[in-house]
Amino acid sequence: MKIALLGMGTVGTGVYEIINEEKGNYFANAQEKVNIKKVLVRDKKKKRKLDVPDDMLTDSFDEILNDEEIETIIFAMGGMEPEYTYMKEAMKSKKHVITANKAVVSEYLDTLLNLAEQNDVMFLFEASVGGGIPIITSLKETLKINRIDEIKGILNGTSNFILSKMSSEGRDFSQVLKEAQDLGFAEADPSADIDGFDVSRKLAILSSLAFGCHIKDEDIYKRGIREVSKSDMEMFDNLGYVLKYLAHSKMESDNYCATVEPVLLSSKNIMSNVNEEFNIVSIHGNIIGELQFYGKGAGKNATANAVVGDLLYIINNENKKEDISLDRIMENRKLDAFKGKYYMRIDIKNHEEFKNIIDMVDEISKVKKMMVEKSQIFVVTEELSAYTVNDLAQKINESGNSLFYARIVE
Amino acid sequence: MKIALLGMGTVGTGVYEIINEEKGNYFANAQEKVNIKKVLVRDKKKKRKLDVPDDMLTDSFDEILNDEEIETIIFAMGGMEPEYTYMKEAMKSKKHVITANKAVVSEYLDTLLNLAEQNDVMFLFEASVGGGIPIITSLKETLKINRIDEIKGILNGTSNFILSKMSSEGRDFSQVLKEAQDLGFAEADPSADIDGFDVSRKLAILSSLAFGCHIKDEDIYKRGIREVSKSDMEMFDNLGYVLKYLAHSKMESDNYCATVEPVLLSSKNIMSNVNEEFNIVSIHGNIIGELQFYGKGAGKNATANAVVGDLLYIINNENKKEDISLDRIMENRKLDAFKGKYYMRIDIKNHEEFKNIIDMVDEISKVKKMMVEKSQIFVVTEELSAYTVNDLAQKINESGNSLFYARIVE
Repeated sequence: MKIALLGMGTVGTGVYEIINEEKGNYFANAQEKVNIKKVLVRDKKKKRKLDVPDDMLTDSFDEILNDEEIETIIFAMGGMEPEYTYMKEAMKSKKHVITANKAVVSEYLDTLLNLAEQNDVMFLFEASVGGGIPIITSLKETLKINRIDEIKGILNGTSNFILSKMSSEGRDFSQVLKEAQDLGFAEADPSADIDGFDVSRKLAILSSLAFGCHIKDEDIYKRGIREVSKSDMEMFDNLGYVLKYLAHSKMESDNYCATVEPVLLSSKNIMSNVNEEFNIVSIHGNIIGELQFYGKGAGKNATANAVVGDLLYIINNENKKEDISLDRIMENRKLDAFKGKYYMRIDIKNHEEFKNIIDMVDEISKVKKMMVEKSQIFVVTEELSAYTVNDLAQKINESGNSLFYARIVE
Repeated sequence: MKIALLGMGTVGTGVYEIINEEKGNYFANAQEKVNIKKVLVRDKKKKRKLDVPDDMLTDSFDEILNDEEIETIIFAMGGMEPEYTYMKEAMKSKKHVITANKAVVSEYLDTLLNLAEQNDVMFLFEASVGGGIPIITSLKETLKINRIDEIKGILNGTSNFILSKMSSEGRDFSQVLKEAQDLGFAEADPSADIDGFDVSRKLAILSSLAFGCHIKDEDIYKRGIREVSKSDMEMFDNLGYVLKYLAHSKMESDNYCATVEPVLLSSKNIMSNVNEEFNIVSIHGNIIGELQFYGKGAGKNATANAVVGDLLYIINNENKKEDISLDRIMENRKLDAFKGKYYMRIDIKNHEEFKNIIDMVDEISKVKKMMVEKSQIFVVTEELSAYTVNDLAQKINESGNSLFYARIVE
């Protein structure tokens, strides 16, 4: 099979190495030899680490589109446009599409799957979620027998690295963020990682497939991790909890809820020991129970492995229709399904506020544990709904004091 | 597709429910409707929980074998014979075989795979390892691109239940074993679970596929968990370790090592939080890095889910050859690859032995930590080879004192 590769960044280079430098064993099992015929790059003259033959390089997507020998196009580019347009054009030209691009997949999954079906080609995107973890494939397989009603995941390496470091080294958020930026783990603008947009796209893709309805980034409630402090971390340790940035969605008959939030897990929870760049995904099926999948969430080789896995699937399953439907109509109940005990830290601007704050907390919950330290109150509540806690947060913030809170997932 | 089901025990009942009572969603995606035509049972008259139609029941395997309409036979029986003979006959009669039987698979994997190839049928056995965890499928997929050089797994629910309980409740081995037997989690003769034979068969199957060479139960070094005591558990807790019964194999160019042993993991290790009936498997690939898979290791629904998954694979992949070879010639280096710090507890018969024992330990390792309590010595050694420790154990046992030891896996 002749293929084209769009992009020669980290993922593109990894894919090129596995296929063209036979770094992987894949060729031993593939029923057909794969040849990269064209590589799309912006600048053909740019010096690259990998020695790609000149006649393989092109800066014209049309050249690839019009090449009838090319049966599959691998998208190793990360933006929204022209990627989305290119994907549509590729499938209309009867070419299979493989992508690692979570932005395009989460936003246009429905359209792209339909286009694949109409044109009798495959649209595969294993690498868009969880790097090397075979979660999309496993989800599709599980769905053949099960109804999946819950997904939980640690899906962002940067935020997990920051929280792991803060916890193990007792350091402040801003310090650790700076270190992650210096090491190249975090972007200069870290918002996608620490405010939940990256995780939310991944959760959107998984939840859409699992629940059979197109759930997008904008349907998911997000809270970031910027407000976590060193004093929180000490408190979690004392209480036997670990803070993780969790993607969490639930389904019930005709409705779903999906959130990306910092939550507290028991230190005895498997997910509590997932550190640094590793990802984990838990899915719950009505027959099989809970399954969890753990592996490298990013990185050249792990992600390229997922892309080449999709390519092998196409080679080994020609003429096979995938039966994925996102036609189900579901109500988004936002935060409604999420209940739990809550951890709260309230920073009080002055001592006169103390009674006022305690009253506000008392109004919604008989407090289970409370500690006061200097100008901070730490509380663990009884079971509350997410809405109640959000309302309290708003009230406290409006009073000029501030609140950090996290649900305890048991 | 018409199929036959052999056995109506726990797994057989689960399979029947998913297929015939449409308990699962599988039919929504299967490209072909499945019908159970025959169910083989020992006694057709026996009262069953499930209402199987009389004309579906048979006590004659030949009736199934000679029925040309039956394309696939599901083996939900656990013994060695007549199962092995039946499997061979089934494939020679051009019928696909699916089995949950780890005893037959581990012992005859090579022969059975060859027979499948010769007769152009499939031989699938996802349910034979790790219950509902899709580990065989994931291993095969990973192998298409990676060389797998290490496997670690907690693969036996009974022993894991016993160790989890001993640890969390500070109780003795014999007490907890008795409770597990009363609850029906452990057999009256618990040897297969606590002496390693069950785990070893599962590790044999995984290692054979991963390393490409037929590794059998007898090739695997096994030590049981009978000698673990309450005082060990307290010590592990103090040292920050958790004891797990670990299946562990490693491969290096043309040789391998495989063991089933109690080992110590850091309490920060993901596997440390795998409790009771859950299983976990870790595989390490040269491209993808470490992947871990977690789920229910046994039970009616999880195991039946794996069996029906294999059935769907056959339906969806007709005329596809699997390319699994166990032809590689490898040397079994037994324990040679396993090195680590060791925990030891030595029970001394009388005080005069004390110096003698300390000398024996000193001879092989500068001790890193030592504690003496009544007539017990607790030691954590520096890094040692498994052979050195085995020799020491033998010497100490010969001196009339006794030793329990566990490698620390870091």
